[in-house]
Amino acid sequence: MATDIASQELKSPVDVAHYLFTRLHQVGVRSVHGLPGDYNLVALDYLPECGLHWVGNCNELNAGYAADGYARVNGIGALVTTFGVGELSAINAVAGSFSEFVPVVHVVGQPSTTSMRDGMLLHHTLGNGDFNVFANMSADISCSVAKLNDPHQAATYIDNAIRECSIRSRPVYITLPTDMVRKKVEGERLKKPIDLSRPPNEEEKEEYVVDVVLKYLHAAKSPVILVDACAIRHRVLAEVQDFVRKSQLPTFVTPMGKSAVDETLPNYGGVYAGDGSNEGVKDRVESSDLILNIGAIKSDFNTTGFTYRIGRMNSIDFHSNYIAVRYSEYPGVHMKGVLRKVVDRMGKLNIAPGPTVTNQPPTDPRRQSVTSPGISHSWFWPTVGQWLRERDVVITETGTANFGIWQTRFPKDVVAVSQVLWGSIGYALGACQGAAMAAKEKDPPPRTILFIGDGSFQVTAQELSTMIKNNLTPIIFVICNDGYTIERCIHGWDAEYNDIQPWRFSDLVPAFGAQSDKYKTHSIKTKTELLDLFADESFSSAKALQLVELHIPKEDAPSTLRLTAEAAAKASTRNK
Amino acid sequence: MATDIASQELKSPVDVAHYLFTRLHQVGVRSVHGLPGDYNLVALDYLPECGLHWVGNCNELNAGYAADGYARVNGIGALVTTFGVGELSAINAVAGSFSEFVPVVHVVGQPSTTSMRDGMLLHHTLGNGDFNVFANMSADISCSVAKLNDPHQAATYIDNAIRECSIRSRPVYITLPTDMVRKKVEGERLKKPIDLSRPPNEEEKEEYVVDVVLKYLHAAKSPVILVDACAIRHRVLAEVQDFVRKSQLPTFVTPMGKSAVDETLPNYGGVYAGDGSNEGVKDRVESSDLILNIGAIKSDFNTTGFTYRIGRMNSIDFHSNYIAVRYSEYPGVHMKGVLRKVVDRMGKLNIAPGPTVTNQPPTDPRRQSVTSPGISHSWFWPTVGQWLRERDVVITETGTANFGIWQTRFPKDVVAVSQVLWGSIGYALGACQGAAMAAKEKDPPPRTILFIGDGSFQVTAQELSTMIKNNLTPIIFVICNDGYTIERCIHGWDAEYNDIQPWRFSDLVPAFGAQSDKYKTHSIKTKTELLDLFADESFSSAKALQLVELHIPKEDAPSTLRLTAEAAAKASTRNK
Repeated sequence: MATDIASQELKSPVDVAHYLFTRLHQVGVRSVHGLPGDYNLVALDYLPECGLHWVGNCNELNAGYAADGYARVNGIGALVTTFGVGELSAINAVAGSFSEFVPVVHVVGQPSTTSMRDGMLLHHTLGNGDFNVFANMSADISCSVAKLNDPHQAATYIDNAIRECSIRSRPVYITLPTDMVRKKVEGERLKKPIDLSRPPNEEEKEEYVVDVVLKYLHAAKSPVILVDACAIRHRVLAEVQDFVRKSQLPTFVTPMGKSAVDETLPNYGGVYAGDGSNEGVKDRVESSDLILNIGAIKSDFNTTGFTYRIGRMNSIDFHSNYIAVRYSEYPGVHMKGVLRKVVDRMGKLNIAPGPTVTNQPPTDPRRQSVTSPGISHSWFWPTVGQWLRERDVVITETGTANFGIWQTRFPKDVVAVSQVLWGSIGYALGACQGAAMAAKEKDPPPRTILFIGDGSFQVTAQELSTMIKNNLTPIIFVICNDGYTIERCIHGWDAEYNDIQPWRFSDLVPAFGAQSDKYKTHSIKTKTELLDLFADESFSSAKALQLVELHIPKEDAPSTLRLTAEAAAKASTRNK
Repeated sequence: MATDIASQELKSPVDVAHYLFTRLHQVGVRSVHGLPGDYNLVALDYLPECGLHWVGNCNELNAGYAADGYARVNGIGALVTTFGVGELSAINAVAGSFSEFVPVVHVVGQPSTTSMRDGMLLHHTLGNGDFNVFANMSADISCSVAKLNDPHQAATYIDNAIRECSIRSRPVYITLPTDMVRKKVEGERLKKPIDLSRPPNEEEKEEYVVDVVLKYLHAAKSPVILVDACAIRHRVLAEVQDFVRKSQLPTFVTPMGKSAVDETLPNYGGVYAGDGSNEGVKDRVESSDLILNIGAIKSDFNTTGFTYRIGRMNSIDFHSNYIAVRYSEYPGVHMKGVLRKVVDRMGKLNIAPGPTVTNQPPTDPRRQSVTSPGISHSWFWPTVGQWLRERDVVITETGTANFGIWQTRFPKDVVAVSQVLWGSIGYALGACQGAAMAAKEKDPPPRTILFIGDGSFQVTAQELSTMIKNNLTPIIFVICNDGYTIERCIHGWDAEYNDIQPWRFSDLVPAFGAQSDKYKTHSIKTKTELLDLFADESFSSAKALQLVELHIPKEDAPSTLRLTAEAAAKASTRNK
């Protein structure tokens, strides 16, 4: 990597901010989330000339969630905040991106290097002259930190940070002091894109691992494939799809792996999550003599409270930084190269009788509406699967939606967005804004559909305003059930602290300034009303922003949520 | 401090959560802010039995701001969040409390000690088994960290943390793992309140400092008193009031010191802030041969961009941890004891001609409405002073309000709440909720009045819902001027990134579920309309929640904000 040279020797000098934002555009960013703040204002002036759209969120936490949602749909996202107050407001969202392997470039506008050097008593500081404290906090939730304090290194630091962000699929933190924005760096570098290719595995090692995998795969009587979140985040979906199609092995996904696999394939069998699996799936997976576990994140909420019953003697685990075959571990090997070779060389495999597809919706959802007209989770989620379309972007909130969606069979090429590991409530509304923005930038734009609870909605409500401001047209289902149902399931079913203030959600849309011809709201209480809405093409075509108040009784919750919550409650009070 | 003893030997065993919340009640907390989360639910069950009201905020950042506002009015505040997601969402607010010396006890519900010990892959973690990372982040913005991992130490840790919080007037961070909530500690300890008294100064040292101070004070020809934020935060207001009354010295406050001094006293002269001082004040202060500077925080926004012209040879600085007389520093001496003795022994002082009171409102604010009917900042802020009442709690947002209020002369015993140093936008709406809650708990309850800009309001808008839920009755002035005016003043006056989505603020109140008889909204565009509203007792008595849309042209801003912003902009781009 060439070292930057002094300004007077630059062939094509460009400003640091121009360089940074041009690099973001080159790696695929088109919209930047965040808020203006006095330490980033001058930098924001550079966005238009670099072809970047400024989203302009209502607060930084929401902006961070949105950048995460945008990154999940677009491949990479960007967030700009201001020193101290702005970046700390966003830190929960960035921690979520770190936890869940989402590549977000977080640019923080800082006071000038001279002010920091002199320890000035500036606003947005702790008043103690410490200008490193916030960067230190972010270091723990970023895979790389780049402090642009010196124009001679700025371009190199920017390139390295963006490369790390992409390859490791995690947030990076870049500081941009106000007096660095207009400093000059070598613009010639911009002619050569940043190399985002992952270094290949060591050849001999990879071959060795592939041989071991194939040996066990060929010996297995009833192998199955189980696809989890890291297959999505570490971008091995092409390899996974080829593996699933070519092998024809029974294939399952975990809750966090939803949408990684074409769920219309005949060998797709549903969601495996231990005790919370789709009907029939648990037995099928756990009776297999070899589970090919791709990109697993075996967290409590992804496994119905650690209820997997899969022994390591029956497992091969594929990860971004190691492969494990039974108890043998092969560190430093990325699954991508291994999976490709396994696909190429698999030959004939033993296939035990395929999965029984169990999570199909009721053949006629209308029939149930006669005996029980109200909407229940057990009816709703399979029915949603019949309404979804190819390429839909589907966002589910931590809470009933994240668990209900286990029962929804997706059409082809759906992109699912959820935050099962980090599980920050309110995430999904922010993420929906970012996802809808990324969807709008595609041709043709897919629909963006959000399922969120009323309590979660309140956490980040003003992001609805950002959607209106940016002319986004998601369909938002607000599950109105009077409070924090996921918390009720864990503890305090009737406790006052799990209640919320009742809002008139539909009235929020015009209050946030939506013009009457730019939105529609719906209040849905019965199965029939919902089916009629689904059948209405003016609703389903998603041409305007739409908010659906979906009334489900407080007493109801997805059974998978109940199971997971019981396990969580037990773990909470377990004695030493 | 007695050491806790094993459970079987306890005389009056009580649960850890009961002990903690009883201690909070004993030091004056009546309402606890926060959100439920699975790691704090069981703890929340203990609130009612300890006489504590659960506020139930919409999100943790707002809850943190509210706990801060509550603490400023009540003396101390408390915040309960859940591990990871909850605490990180609040961290900006807690950092603000740290920066601005506000005592808030932050209790974080954690996973069980066994889960943490085993490094379980739980939701709300980074997925890396590190359960200390969030506590480490909070350690930098807390004056004490107490991890309640052992029942034998829990009571001692709780007492120590609450004492530190009170004495050092800064946030403390207490972790409460789920399996510790019901562990037993000695209840007998609760009979003896925590000793919150500050250790007195070393006698000989204090006497020495008092002598030095008195020597310079008696020698001075035209001494003045300048009162700043730390006089409020470190609770020396009684000493300051006695000093001001008895000495009759010309007395001024800084912007952050507003409300520390009775502004109706004849020797009160207005706001000193360098170039942004009230008319005539700058000359008066800077020509003094001795400025008694009490509790100074000389930050950029408190000094109109570092435009003080006070030499150290003309200054005595009183702080919570040192006194400085000219260049002589006396570390380890608290101003409280020193000020008391100075008051007792001051004798006769030289008093140069008193301050010219300059920030009185126009004698007839209606007269101006004829020539220019629209509302300007220069007219509004002095006029507000005529409408305010004794004991009002007045909250101003970072932005035009924080600078405009420099021109408002307060009645007696007003409590001013603002965040001039940390300056996080959106703070004031959250703080207003907490302040209004603390006000409601007083007898009789004072009015709570908020001045906030439209851009700032959007950041934390849902806190309006929490006010409605808790039947609070603040009067909220939303300054509608189409965006982030403070940012415009610094950079990008017409930049799109300083625009916001136009909201219908009045419509938000019913959308957030307010019953029609429980609130009123007003849209005010002219001086006459505002004066009529002020004259209406049904408005001014503040019996219901009221929201006033106050339309001020986008082009207008307080002159003090313009001055400060110009200085900030210069500092931002200053070269090395």
